[in-house]
Amino acid sequence: MSRKDVIAGSRNEEGIPRAVEQLKQRFGERCQTGQSFREQHAHTTTYLPSQLPDAVVFVETSAEVQAVVQICAEHKVPMVAFGTGSSLEGQVNAANGGISIDFSRMDKVLAVNVEDLDCTVEPGVTREALNTYLRDTGLFFPIDPGANASIGGMVATRASGTNAVRYGTMKDNVLALTVVTAKGEEIRTAHRARKSSAGYDLTRLFVGSEGTLGIITSVTLRLQGIPEAIGGGIVAFADEKSACDAVITTIQMGIPVARIELLDALQIRACNAYSGLTLQEKPTLFLEFHGSAETVAMQAAQFDEIQQEFGGEGFRFTTDPQERSQVWKARHNAYWAGRALAPELSGLSSDVCVPISRLADCVAETRADLDRHGLLATIVGHVGDGNFHVLLLFDASNETDVDKVEAFLARLNARALAMDGTCTGEHGIGQGKMSYLEAELGGAIDVMRQIKQALDPDNLFNPGKIFR
Amino acid sequence: MSRKDVIAGSRNEEGIPRAVEQLKQRFGERCQTGQSFREQHAHTTTYLPSQLPDAVVFVETSAEVQAVVQICAEHKVPMVAFGTGSSLEGQVNAANGGISIDFSRMDKVLAVNVEDLDCTVEPGVTREALNTYLRDTGLFFPIDPGANASIGGMVATRASGTNAVRYGTMKDNVLALTVVTAKGEEIRTAHRARKSSAGYDLTRLFVGSEGTLGIITSVTLRLQGIPEAIGGGIVAFADEKSACDAVITTIQMGIPVARIELLDALQIRACNAYSGLTLQEKPTLFLEFHGSAETVAMQAAQFDEIQQEFGGEGFRFTTDPQERSQVWKARHNAYWAGRALAPELSGLSSDVCVPISRLADCVAETRADLDRHGLLATIVGHVGDGNFHVLLLFDASNETDVDKVEAFLARLNARALAMDGTCTGEHGIGQGKMSYLEAELGGAIDVMRQIKQALDPDNLFNPGKIFR
Repeated sequence: MSRKDVIAGSRNEEGIPRAVEQLKQRFGERCQTGQSFREQHAHTTTYLPSQLPDAVVFVETSAEVQAVVQICAEHKVPMVAFGTGSSLEGQVNAANGGISIDFSRMDKVLAVNVEDLDCTVEPGVTREALNTYLRDTGLFFPIDPGANASIGGMVATRASGTNAVRYGTMKDNVLALTVVTAKGEEIRTAHRARKSSAGYDLTRLFVGSEGTLGIITSVTLRLQGIPEAIGGGIVAFADEKSACDAVITTIQMGIPVARIELLDALQIRACNAYSGLTLQEKPTLFLEFHGSAETVAMQAAQFDEIQQEFGGEGFRFTTDPQERSQVWKARHNAYWAGRALAPELSGLSSDVCVPISRLADCVAETRADLDRHGLLATIVGHVGDGNFHVLLLFDASNETDVDKVEAFLARLNARALAMDGTCTGEHGIGQGKMSYLEAELGGAIDVMRQIKQALDPDNLFNPGKIFR
Repeated sequence: MSRKDVIAGSRNEEGIPRAVEQLKQRFGERCQTGQSFREQHAHTTTYLPSQLPDAVVFVETSAEVQAVVQICAEHKVPMVAFGTGSSLEGQVNAANGGISIDFSRMDKVLAVNVEDLDCTVEPGVTREALNTYLRDTGLFFPIDPGANASIGGMVATRASGTNAVRYGTMKDNVLALTVVTAKGEEIRTAHRARKSSAGYDLTRLFVGSEGTLGIITSVTLRLQGIPEAIGGGIVAFADEKSACDAVITTIQMGIPVARIELLDALQIRACNAYSGLTLQEKPTLFLEFHGSAETVAMQAAQFDEIQQEFGGEGFRFTTDPQERSQVWKARHNAYWAGRALAPELSGLSSDVCVPISRLADCVAETRADLDRHGLLATIVGHVGDGNFHVLLLFDASNETDVDKVEAFLARLNARALAMDGTCTGEHGIGQGKMSYLEAELGGAIDVMRQIKQALDPDNLFNPGKIFR
C-alpha cells in the first residue's frame, strides 16, 4: 500500500455540477451533497486519505441505476458504487470526484430457490442479513470476510474469508450477475445452471473488477445446506511455524476443514483484552468442521493427531454452540481487538497469499521482519488457503513511521511474490496495491487496460483503481 | 446446432500464401500443407462440414507459438489452436482459412508441486497422459470429459464431465495460464496461490474463450489427492423421471457423490452390445463415491435409501476395482456405443444444462419429444450438475432428416433456457450454438464482442466462433 497511489485525477469541472443538478431533479432527497454524506462515502477504513464524491445517490431499483449511469455518461462524470464501505484498499475513494451510488436501499432478497440451493439478491443485502433471511430454509451463504459487507461489494472485490478453505471465494459462489454497462444497458451474464460453457465468462470478469467495468444490479449466489453437525476447537503452538506446519499437513491430507484460522500471540493478547477471554498468549489455530456428527468427529480426530505431531498444546474440541460462538465472535472482532491495542494509532490491514507449502516460511519471515524493524503488528490468517493479514498499528501523522510501514509492505509483497504468491488474496488492489500488481502480473495489466478501455471508454466507472 | 452458422468468412488471399511461405522457412517439415494434414485438423466430430486450414504448424515451444502469432499478425492471417480435435461444435474449423497450430508436441509436464497439490503443463498434454504421469505422486487431475482431450483444449472449451459434480469444471481447476496475445507477447494471468484478488480474472476469461482471445502456452492446474477409498455402483429405474428424481434428492441432501451419471434405456442397450455387458435395458444411474472407507460406505448407504424411495431396482454397490472399471469403461465408450447402434448414420452430440430441480422435467420432456418426432437418439448425462447430452443418429445427406434434427435442437435449447438453464454445460458454442447463445444472453454478447475487438482487433484468433 502506498499513499503515492492516491492521486487525484482530473475533475470534469463542467460536467459534474450539471450531472448533480440533473440527479437532484430526478432523485430529490435521495441525491445528497452534504459534507457528512460525502465524507461517509469516501471513508477508506485505512490511513489512505479520503477523496470525496460530489454527491451521493441512494438508488432503489436497477432502472434507477441505469438512469444514474445515463446521466453520468452524458456529462462524463465518474461513478463509484458503494455498499457498506468496508473495503480496505481505498476502493470507494472518488479519485476524480463524481457520484457515489449508494446501494443500501437495494437490500431485497429477490428469490430463494431452495431446491436448487441458490438465491438472487440485490447488491445492497449484507451477508449477515442474507443469512438471517435464509435461516428457516436450512441453507446458508458461506462466504464470510469478517466485516458485514454487502454482497455487491463482496462480488466487486472477489471477497473470501474464513470459510473459503472449504466453500471457495466469491468467484466460486456467484452463478450470475446483472450489470449496467457504460451504455446504460442492463445485461445478464448467465442463468441459474450450475455450469455453462456459453461464451466468455463475464460473471467471473465482473467478480473482482472493483466497480471499474460496470455497476452490479443483482447477484445470483450458490447456497449450501446448513451442516447437520458443526464442531470446532482451538489449539496453541510454541511458535507460528509449528502452527503453520500443522495447517500445511491438514490441507495436504485433504481433511475438509471448514475454517482454519491463525491468530498470533499478540493478536491473542488483543482478543483476550477485547473479548474477555483467557487464552494462552501463543500462536493459536481456530478450527471448525462441518458435516455429519460422524464425519465431524472423524475430522477432529485426524486433526488432533496432526496438532500433536507439531507440538500443539492441547486441542480443545467442542460441539457446544455457545462455546463455539464465543470463540468465533472473538475471531470476528480480531480487527477491532487489534486496533484497541493502541487506539491512538492508525491501523492498516494488508493481506498476501502464498502456495500452502510456503505458508510457514512466509509467516515466520514476516514476523521476524516486523520484530526486526520494531513494528507493532498482529498476524491473522485464513491459513488453509495460504492467506494471511498483517494489521499494522502506527502513527499516520509521523512521516518516518509511515515510510517504515510502506517499506515493510514492499518487503511483504516481494516475499509473497518470490514464493509464487499474490499481493492480495482477498482485499483487492484498489489504490493501495497498484505497484504490487505491476510487479506480480506485468504485461497482463496491459490486457486488463484493453478490457477497461473497451467496456468503459470514458473511464467513468471507479477511475484510478487497480491500474493507472 | 445449425449448419447455417458454418459460414466461410472472407479469406485473406494475399496474406495467407505469404505467411505460409514464411512459416515453411521457419519450421521446415513442421509446417505441413498436405491435404491429409489439413483435413485431419478440421475434423469436427460432428456432421458440420469441415473447413480446412491452409497449413498446420507443429509447435514445440512457447517461443515458437509467439513466432507463429507474429508471422500471422504481420500478414493478417487467422490462427486456430488444435489439441486433439475432440471438440463437438466445430471449434477447430478454419472458417476463414489460415494456420492450424498443433500442440501435440507441446506435451510436457513442466512441474508438479506435490506439496501444493498443483502442476504446470504444456497445453498438448492429454488428461490421460497427465494422470499416468501423476500416478506415483498420490495425486490426480479429476476433470474427465470422456474424450482423451488435451488440457489446452479443455481450458479453451471450459470442459467438465463425469467428476464435475464433486470437483468442479475447468473454471474451478485452472490456477493460472500463460497466453500469447495478439501482439505476440506472452502474459501470465496469475501465480500459484490458491486464491487472489489481484486485478481482473484473466484466467477465467481465457477459460472457455475457445481460442478466440489468445493462444494458451501453459496451464497451471489444481490437483486432488487420490481418494483412500473408491466405491461405486449402478441402479436401474422404471423411467427417466424416477432416476432423475433420485439424483435431485441426492444433490439436495448434499451427498458428495464423485460421479452420478444417467444412461437411458437405449444407451444401455448400446453399451451392452458394444461393451459386452448384460445390464437391464432401463434408465440407469452409474455412481461413484470418493473418501475414506467409512465415508464411502456412509454415502453409499444414504444413496441406497434414496434409490429405494424412487423405485430403484437394486443398487449394486462395489469397491472392487475391476468391476468398477468395467462399468466406467462402458460409460466412457457410451458415445462410440451409441454410434454403433447405426454405424451408417451420422452422430451429433448436443448438451444442455438446467438447474437441478428441473432436471427430471427436462429429461422426460426431451425423451417424449424425441419419441414424438421419431428421432433415434440416446440420452446420457452428468446429471448431478443438471447437465445431459442427446446423441442423435441421422442421415446427414438427407435434408429432411437434418431439418428434423435441427428443429429438435431448437426445441431442446428453448426448453433448457425456459427452465433458466444454458444451451451448453460443457461443449461450448463454437459454430454450432451461436443462435442459442443469442437467445440465452442477448445484450451480454455485445460485451463479449467488445472484449474480442479489444484483445484481437484484426479478428485473427479462431474467427467465426462463439458469435458472428
